[in-house]
Amino acid sequence: METLSTNKAFGGVQGVYRHASAATGTPMTFSVYVPPHAEGAKLPVLWYLSGLTCTHANVTEKGEYRRACAEAGVIFVAPDTSPRGEGVADVPDYDFGQGAGFYVDATQAPWSGHFHMRSYIEDELPALLATEFPMADLTRQGITGHSMGGHGALTIGLRNPERFRSVSAFAPIVATAQVAWGQKALGGYLGDNPAAWRTHDAVALIEDGARLPELLVDQGDADSFLADQLRPQLLADACAAAGIPLTLRLQPGYDHSYYFVSTFLAEHVAWHAARLKA
Amino acid sequence: METLSTNKAFGGVQGVYRHASAATGTPMTFSVYVPPHAEGAKLPVLWYLSGLTCTHANVTEKGEYRRACAEAGVIFVAPDTSPRGEGVADVPDYDFGQGAGFYVDATQAPWSGHFHMRSYIEDELPALLATEFPMADLTRQGITGHSMGGHGALTIGLRNPERFRSVSAFAPIVATAQVAWGQKALGGYLGDNPAAWRTHDAVALIEDGARLPELLVDQGDADSFLADQLRPQLLADACAAAGIPLTLRLQPGYDHSYYFVSTFLAEHVAWHAARLKA
Repeated sequence: METLSTNKAFGGVQGVYRHASAATGTPMTFSVYVPPHAEGAKLPVLWYLSGLTCTHANVTEKGEYRRACAEAGVIFVAPDTSPRGEGVADVPDYDFGQGAGFYVDATQAPWSGHFHMRSYIEDELPALLATEFPMADLTRQGITGHSMGGHGALTIGLRNPERFRSVSAFAPIVATAQVAWGQKALGGYLGDNPAAWRTHDAVALIEDGARLPELLVDQGDADSFLADQLRPQLLADACAAAGIPLTLRLQPGYDHSYYFVSTFLAEHVAWHAARLKA
Repeated sequence: METLSTNKAFGGVQGVYRHASAATGTPMTFSVYVPPHAEGAKLPVLWYLSGLTCTHANVTEKGEYRRACAEAGVIFVAPDTSPRGEGVADVPDYDFGQGAGFYVDATQAPWSGHFHMRSYIEDELPALLATEFPMADLTRQGITGHSMGGHGALTIGLRNPERFRSVSAFAPIVATAQVAWGQKALGGYLGDNPAAWRTHDAVALIEDGARLPELLVDQGDADSFLADQLRPQLLADACAAAGIPLTLRLQPGYDHSYYFVSTFLAEHVAWHAARLKA
């Protein structure tokens, strides 16, 4: 692992790192904020998965999470959203290809060569974190994300309840297989495979029996993607049918931007921290 | 004035605006955060002047000031650092020309055509604010800034004590005429004119009799510009000789970046707010 930068912030260290990923076969860049802590202390980890077009940098620069992480003693990890670079398949679309990995392991050419973001997030990056960040307590992990990253947080959280004690999301794609963004991505990466699609759709996972102890979702009501791509009511219905306690907060006047995420991310950090106490 | 964008954030509105500036003879872009407030309320205004290369966008995206402004009820205004665009003189240097206006009214060709940032900040933009933002109480203004913008905040604050009740700075250039960045800028914009230089040098202004009731300065001790360009001890000496109460906080481990500014900007907002109470 190569350190690209470290900056002191809110008493801790905001770092940006790069490593050669076996999962994607590319260099992958990610950021980690380690809050101030006592020598030898072990700290819980909150994963943040980003949305379409984003790298680690968007939330790292605009997310305003460091104060809350410093106060709560939480490590914050922000991966990239796809493999990137020359030699990696791509299309000009903002919602598919590079910057739009949708947290799946692609099975369809040409994407299957590098687009293995599920394995990257579920297996490889946690293992790297365990090696390189000895203060990270991987028995205490939470996960959140925004938009496509909200889809990632919900689906990865639902598939791995033993790993994630706490799951939340910002303006997530909740029913990936039912909306245009998700149909394009799942069709392109996974082909015509309804069973595979259901493992990458939060509502379908719940319908198929996946459970979480509780769920926190913030959604702006002025979000231009609300009605067509996000459709939080589908998640509310699925959670109600499954008996999953969902706190769905429709935030009046907020849009899909980081002005929305940054307004509420500190509350999510505190919410996760309360559930990740030793 | 044209509205480029508005986004709800922390209960208020983060806006970005553009207008045709008479002072610079160019379109100028700036941002204003208006916190949540009661209808008809009047709110104090905190100006933030940015550093070399920056536009309004750097602090707007990375400054993490909105939570504190919302809590304290303070309007936050972030102007650009120079005129820009085709037809505006420039050099490739990062520390001179576009993005490096140094908050002076240039008298030397070719800069004297558009580089009138002193008039812009001291006169034109406050007048526009008074017209366009009726909730802004211009009897209660504070000013802060970073690096070159710290120089701007200190010098504008020292020259206009009747306008600014509170002045602070982050890693400011304190003795502009004594350091390489400042000598290049003042020489280029103002020519060989020692008297004019002294009105754009905080230490010289204090030596020449300018006074403030108090001053707050944060400075990272891992700032790579500390020893050569910033030299806060010169400000400390001038304040001590003049009897100006200076709180100079040397912050261990912090560099010159927005990771430093964002760590302490909320404290500055609260500090100003306490001094800008009705």
